[in-house]
Amino acid sequence: MPEFLKLLSCDEARRILAGFAPVGGEDVPTARGLGRVLAEDFRAPHDLPREPRSTVDGYAVRAKDTFGASDGVPCYLKLIGAVPMGGVFAGAIGAGEAVAISTGGVVPEGADGVVMIEYVDAARDGEIEIHRGVSPLENVIRRGDDLTSGDVVVARGRRLRPADIGALAGFGQTRVRVFRAPRVAVLSTGNEVVAPDIEPAPGQVRDVNQYALAAQGERAGAEATLAGIVRDDAPALRARVAELLEVHDVVMLSGGSSVGARDVAAEVVGSLGPRGVLLHGINIRPGRPTLVADIGGKPVLGMPGFPVSAMVIFDVFVRPLLRRIGGEAGREEWPARRRARFARRYASAVGREDWVRVRLAGEWASPILGGSAAISTVLRADGYVRVEAGVEGIDEGAEVDVLLMTE
Amino acid sequence: MPEFLKLLSCDEARRILAGFAPVGGEDVPTARGLGRVLAEDFRAPHDLPREPRSTVDGYAVRAKDTFGASDGVPCYLKLIGAVPMGGVFAGAIGAGEAVAISTGGVVPEGADGVVMIEYVDAARDGEIEIHRGVSPLENVIRRGDDLTSGDVVVARGRRLRPADIGALAGFGQTRVRVFRAPRVAVLSTGNEVVAPDIEPAPGQVRDVNQYALAAQGERAGAEATLAGIVRDDAPALRARVAELLEVHDVVMLSGGSSVGARDVAAEVVGSLGPRGVLLHGINIRPGRPTLVADIGGKPVLGMPGFPVSAMVIFDVFVRPLLRRIGGEAGREEWPARRRARFARRYASAVGREDWVRVRLAGEWASPILGGSAAISTVLRADGYVRVEAGVEGIDEGAEVDVLLMTE
Repeated sequence: MPEFLKLLSCDEARRILAGFAPVGGEDVPTARGLGRVLAEDFRAPHDLPREPRSTVDGYAVRAKDTFGASDGVPCYLKLIGAVPMGGVFAGAIGAGEAVAISTGGVVPEGADGVVMIEYVDAARDGEIEIHRGVSPLENVIRRGDDLTSGDVVVARGRRLRPADIGALAGFGQTRVRVFRAPRVAVLSTGNEVVAPDIEPAPGQVRDVNQYALAAQGERAGAEATLAGIVRDDAPALRARVAELLEVHDVVMLSGGSSVGARDVAAEVVGSLGPRGVLLHGINIRPGRPTLVADIGGKPVLGMPGFPVSAMVIFDVFVRPLLRRIGGEAGREEWPARRRARFARRYASAVGREDWVRVRLAGEWASPILGGSAAISTVLRADGYVRVEAGVEGIDEGAEVDVLLMTE
Repeated sequence: MPEFLKLLSCDEARRILAGFAPVGGEDVPTARGLGRVLAEDFRAPHDLPREPRSTVDGYAVRAKDTFGASDGVPCYLKLIGAVPMGGVFAGAIGAGEAVAISTGGVVPEGADGVVMIEYVDAARDGEIEIHRGVSPLENVIRRGDDLTSGDVVVARGRRLRPADIGALAGFGQTRVRVFRAPRVAVLSTGNEVVAPDIEPAPGQVRDVNQYALAAQGERAGAEATLAGIVRDDAPALRARVAELLEVHDVVMLSGGSSVGARDVAAEVVGSLGPRGVLLHGINIRPGRPTLVADIGGKPVLGMPGFPVSAMVIFDVFVRPLLRRIGGEAGREEWPARRRARFARRYASAVGREDWVRVRLAGEWASPILGGSAAISTVLRADGYVRVEAGVEGIDEGAEVDVLLMTE
């Protein structure tokens, strides 16, 4: 008889998973940094902009020279030149003078405002007619107005977005220090599991988990290795896991669904290192038979056998783990969510956290029936509704947050 | 004097951009298909599962043999064997018989239900004691219950998610037909723009747009090429754009911000092909001086010079364009959004669409001040609030949808 699992609560499981340390850092070219996690605060090495610049096309002036100008009473200034793009105007603006300037041009010495081109006409040769006055600093961005030398431009722990890449480039930072992408090996186990290019014999199934979990890992910012299929054989599994641990930060055993396979996985993983199995069984649906071990400080994760359960456990526990050991910080776990009304009554057990796959239609979120044995329940889902452990279920029509499967 | 722009509404611009055709297809290994867009419906080549399978660990039985069994009145069945994982039970279950079965095991001939292991004790040798009866089909997933032969498993136009990759693998589909990733060249122009590894002279700025826009393109599923910096010189620009169009599906000119640079870009792009410039100027803030041309059926996009404006124009117009020509269909444009209250009054012009950068704090969305000349307004933003063209502004405290910058 197999042992029954001792179920931990989801929150206990989360606490245990929070104990793993981040991976190290590496330097990469900034242009390849998208989606990587910054390992050190990046501070502005100088003010931005470095010189006062015009934010419009027009004429740099002394604001007080234009005071009160209007269509009825225009003012006239002497046009003494133009600001070259990529250079500076040689000279200063004096009383009654103006210099043509483009958006982004350096505002010349003596000028403190820029009149937009829309409000200016050419008058006599070398003179312009201004129909609207400007205030001091109007249409000018001063030195350091955007970012000041020493400001944190991008903080450690941030997964770099396009704007961050642009800002780093703009400050001349051509390489950046980032956390290594966690290296995750994904291994399938089970005597019934065959590779996708094999025609299954009766009783066999093609491997789904290895591919789905590797893709989830990749999307979570990890570097995923497809580590193949191992039969339910303790020595073979032990050797393979030990080998994978040498060059990976995390090993995911996507477990055979049979009792035997689970027992083999638990025994093997438990025997690999001193801390061994930290938890085996979580009070969650789907995904109860999950196993977490610590082998030399590295997480070894025994995922449930059903693809749906494995994918849910990834979403609930493994993605946050990968993000944390990948150095990511200060990020909300599931920002893409949508308010909706739950389309039918759903009963849960108190103490158990349920992750219900739902489909959205207008304001309604309909739970997808079919259980965790059916992969179609994930294929057709738009997101999850999380039923917290302290709750008995969800009433029909209740307002819920749908966690969208865009993660 | 430069010409003033003829502004089109955002919706007119969207209509024009909707006219570009999708790129072609290619075959890739399924395991590399994450994030690619499927070019043909994938239909189930066979039922899934192919045989009736148990969804629990327990004992396969004839349900009627267990009718009424309870703790007080257990029933007893003869244990005649076990279902091997990866095989089938040789034989059939008769009246009063049971076979041990693991989750995922093939339910033997004659059995129509599975009693969970929790409700079974070993009795005498070769006999089990059942404490709870099962109904027909209880804990069994029948052949085709998950997906039936011919069902659309993943539809054409879908950007492949991890579950899709798993399902394709599970059906033995080791290669898939996807749309090519659109090839996008990103070119910076402007006499004032220097590469990130150059120390700018007074009046020069380091290139931000090329890097930010390429990163945005990459994130939108395109293959982005950093195409360098070209000075405001019509022949040089014309030659470079023509060259890039030979091997790319889209060219983004991240325009110099000066009037001169914009005029050069418009002239060059207009002269490259018969349809030429489709629009120059959109009634949007930020990003008004945007230019769209059609050169031999390929979009050439003149992006605004300010990095913030360029990034917003990408988010508003270019990402949807890239998704469409990349074959994506049936996807909501901005699924990651959050309901919030707008923290201060914001005035807009009727007819103009404003994309306001906001920062979230609790239920409040605060507009970030600083204008489109300050890249910090994007770095610090959590998302956008879109002020539609027909609206004069947003009242303090009004409910708004924040489009999160997780795209």
